[in-house]
Amino acid sequence: MHTPQLSRHSDQTLAEQLAAHFAQQIRHRLLSPGARLPSVRDCAQRHAVSPHTVVAAYDQLLAQGLVEARRQRGFFVRELRRDLPATRDTTPPTPRTVPFDASALIRGMLGRNSQRPGPGLGTLPPSWLDLPMLHAALRKVLSEDRGLDDAAASLQYGEPAGDPRLRAALSDRIADFGVRAAPSQILTAVGATQALDLVSRTLLTPGDAVLVDEPGWSVEYARLTHLGMRLLPVPRGPDGPDLAVMDTLAREHRPRLYVTVSVLHNPTGGMLSLSTAHRLLQLAQDHDLQILEDDTYAHLAPAHAPRLSALDGLRRTFYVSGFSKILAPGWRVGYVAAPESQVERLIDVKLLSSLTTPALLEQAVAVCLEQGQLRRHAERVCARLDAARSRSVQLALGAGCSFVCPPQGLFGWVETGVDTEQLAQRLLDADWLMAPGSLFHARRQPSTRMRINFATAQDAGFWRAFSAARDALQP
Amino acid sequence: MHTPQLSRHSDQTLAEQLAAHFAQQIRHRLLSPGARLPSVRDCAQRHAVSPHTVVAAYDQLLAQGLVEARRQRGFFVRELRRDLPATRDTTPPTPRTVPFDASALIRGMLGRNSQRPGPGLGTLPPSWLDLPMLHAALRKVLSEDRGLDDAAASLQYGEPAGDPRLRAALSDRIADFGVRAAPSQILTAVGATQALDLVSRTLLTPGDAVLVDEPGWSVEYARLTHLGMRLLPVPRGPDGPDLAVMDTLAREHRPRLYVTVSVLHNPTGGMLSLSTAHRLLQLAQDHDLQILEDDTYAHLAPAHAPRLSALDGLRRTFYVSGFSKILAPGWRVGYVAAPESQVERLIDVKLLSSLTTPALLEQAVAVCLEQGQLRRHAERVCARLDAARSRSVQLALGAGCSFVCPPQGLFGWVETGVDTEQLAQRLLDADWLMAPGSLFHARRQPSTRMRINFATAQDAGFWRAFSAARDALQP
Repeated sequence: MHTPQLSRHSDQTLAEQLAAHFAQQIRHRLLSPGARLPSVRDCAQRHAVSPHTVVAAYDQLLAQGLVEARRQRGFFVRELRRDLPATRDTTPPTPRTVPFDASALIRGMLGRNSQRPGPGLGTLPPSWLDLPMLHAALRKVLSEDRGLDDAAASLQYGEPAGDPRLRAALSDRIADFGVRAAPSQILTAVGATQALDLVSRTLLTPGDAVLVDEPGWSVEYARLTHLGMRLLPVPRGPDGPDLAVMDTLAREHRPRLYVTVSVLHNPTGGMLSLSTAHRLLQLAQDHDLQILEDDTYAHLAPAHAPRLSALDGLRRTFYVSGFSKILAPGWRVGYVAAPESQVERLIDVKLLSSLTTPALLEQAVAVCLEQGQLRRHAERVCARLDAARSRSVQLALGAGCSFVCPPQGLFGWVETGVDTEQLAQRLLDADWLMAPGSLFHARRQPSTRMRINFATAQDAGFWRAFSAARDALQP
Repeated sequence: MHTPQLSRHSDQTLAEQLAAHFAQQIRHRLLSPGARLPSVRDCAQRHAVSPHTVVAAYDQLLAQGLVEARRQRGFFVRELRRDLPATRDTTPPTPRTVPFDASALIRGMLGRNSQRPGPGLGTLPPSWLDLPMLHAALRKVLSEDRGLDDAAASLQYGEPAGDPRLRAALSDRIADFGVRAAPSQILTAVGATQALDLVSRTLLTPGDAVLVDEPGWSVEYARLTHLGMRLLPVPRGPDGPDLAVMDTLAREHRPRLYVTVSVLHNPTGGMLSLSTAHRLLQLAQDHDLQILEDDTYAHLAPAHAPRLSALDGLRRTFYVSGFSKILAPGWRVGYVAAPESQVERLIDVKLLSSLTTPALLEQAVAVCLEQGQLRRHAERVCARLDAARSRSVQLALGAGCSFVCPPQGLFGWVETGVDTEQLAQRLLDADWLMAPGSLFHARRQPSTRMRINFATAQDAGFWRAFSAARDALQP
């Protein structure tokens, strides 16, 4: 995933190092099956090695079964797994695979271990987060955990709905956004991701049609597809989804559910307007649609931004959020606030999925919420993000890009004028992780857009590399 | 769920208290829809109140829509949710519900807040666990977490496969059981429960047939059913499954997967014999079956007990285990060791389910493993369990029960001679949580057996209550 740090003083030859670099990219799916490797000349030039070295490297990849040569056309990445001669298990081929694209970006983000900021990343830089606050909260909980002998939280499975202290704190917190839910309507989860998964598994049956925003978050598309659902993409504008399209799709396909991000939509940064929200709920009522509202970016947005769950009063909406974008991604604390009549069924599905969730971490988040620490931290982060956004926007505009939606929140949706998948591949070779627009479409399609993270796109070096790569691609 | 502590000095009338008691039982599903409430006379006698009080309580339940009266027959619990007048949301009825029985026992276990030991519980008593060891491990990890500035584990999502330190420690640990897996073949999960869920979701498509042991763990039945699979129960004897039945079912239904507990099978405590294991793997090969081996009770069993995953070399087997039965249920740390060719697909499904898992807790478990603390703790627990088992077995035999399989491990599978569901209901009124045999069948059927937890069935008081309730039920 990194730039190959080819070294003449390594135990490995340059060809071995180069082959290892490509092999890793293929295994991590940063090079897709079917993708063409750079031409020998290009590759030699880019990595400052001789063409012989590149040929030797490609030969090694051939021998490993990772690529295939096609006459006159070059080297192409092979389908992984089935063809790999190294795997010898006897498990039969399996029927349903996870859509390929979903995994590539997210693995690139998670597995990344680079010194360079990744403009394609999905989270705040770790240095923006407040580790001492988190540790103090956890230590406080540990000392309480000890207090009650056998009743220690870590020695029990805990309540199926999740830690009661956190659920009470969340009930207070989301009231700030206008979402009214009793603690008994709140269910904790392993991050917003599990919360979204639980709601989907509770409400849907394979074959159901589901409305989704497009562009949108590819992991959500992948989850629904893997669950066997039919995706109905609805074009997403700055103010919300295209209601005319949604109405037509709802008539034709009778979807059960609409999954959306109202506030600081990923990737556009768009915000649902109050009037669209109102009409959307009417449309949902007409078609008897349920709504899954993903408010992952809640803490980076103004509290008054309209949430469907607030307007609707959690009648047909499920409100999902978490703390990965503000507190601690690795703690995996998220939740869902649900219509009262659906809570028991959600708890059942949670029991089947993970039994319960870790109470210690949930209690530590509760401590941060109760004492106003999270609120003060979020204010500092938002101020810092405002400054970063100004700088990133200036750099993007200076590089000849434009913004599809007004820049706000964590992500910008940027028009580049060239195919961003090719761009991403070139930039990755220089260790810049970029999020090409194709990843935000329900069905893979070329895109000239990309998503940038304002916090990690402030480096002028990235924009220089970006401009150079784009100019090389332009006809 | 508790004995109603009816008090004449409460703000509530006795009838209100009694109604609240039944309402809670209904909401927690300890009384199923369709279940009959005790007769007025029985109830009055059992709770030492007048029949008028009982009638008033039942009237309140009627008014709340929780029960219905059937002429000449008494009061019956209504179907929850759909009929409840209090719920006013507009969500349409949903297609697939979690099988009812799975939830009842597990909620009873989890939501329990009683002074009395529950012979039906599924875990070790918290007082048997080593809280100081767990806290010391977590504090150690917290102090390391601070070391590397931005690289702090809690500030990153972590590796998709799970914390590398834990995976390395697990690779060593399961080699003790003969299961050979590189760290790269191991995936951490939110308890063994999520690991089982991930494997099922990776390998299966709705409609697939799956072989399961019967009796077996009802949550497993419920998960597979909720995922849309067809269950094929195979009778489980003390040495393992009935291979003749399995062979016939495999021929007729072409199942994709067999889910089993080889070691200390829940609920029987049976152990797969080496010869059955060998023949079972041959049968799996003949029918191209994959095997999901749940080794949740690994730490309570002799290391030499044969695991299918060890014999098979993780070719068609997936090995799942965790630490809820030995270390800390509430930490939710589990894992799966998989055939090499399946790891990437499992990681994809994990990403869709919960993105990653909490690295802090995984690292703390790694600390316990690395330093041999877990091993020493497990030795102490096993010695204590041996003593508890002797005492519980003696009490059970003294109460006229017999054991279906030789008593070993945590659970005993006990023949009582009467219907254990009725027995469980009566004992629950006296605050003794019992696990009736019907919960361990794939399709609900009456059973005269029950599962006891040797660690929590040592109280002579339970066996006196048991004998009295049984005698009252016997014809």
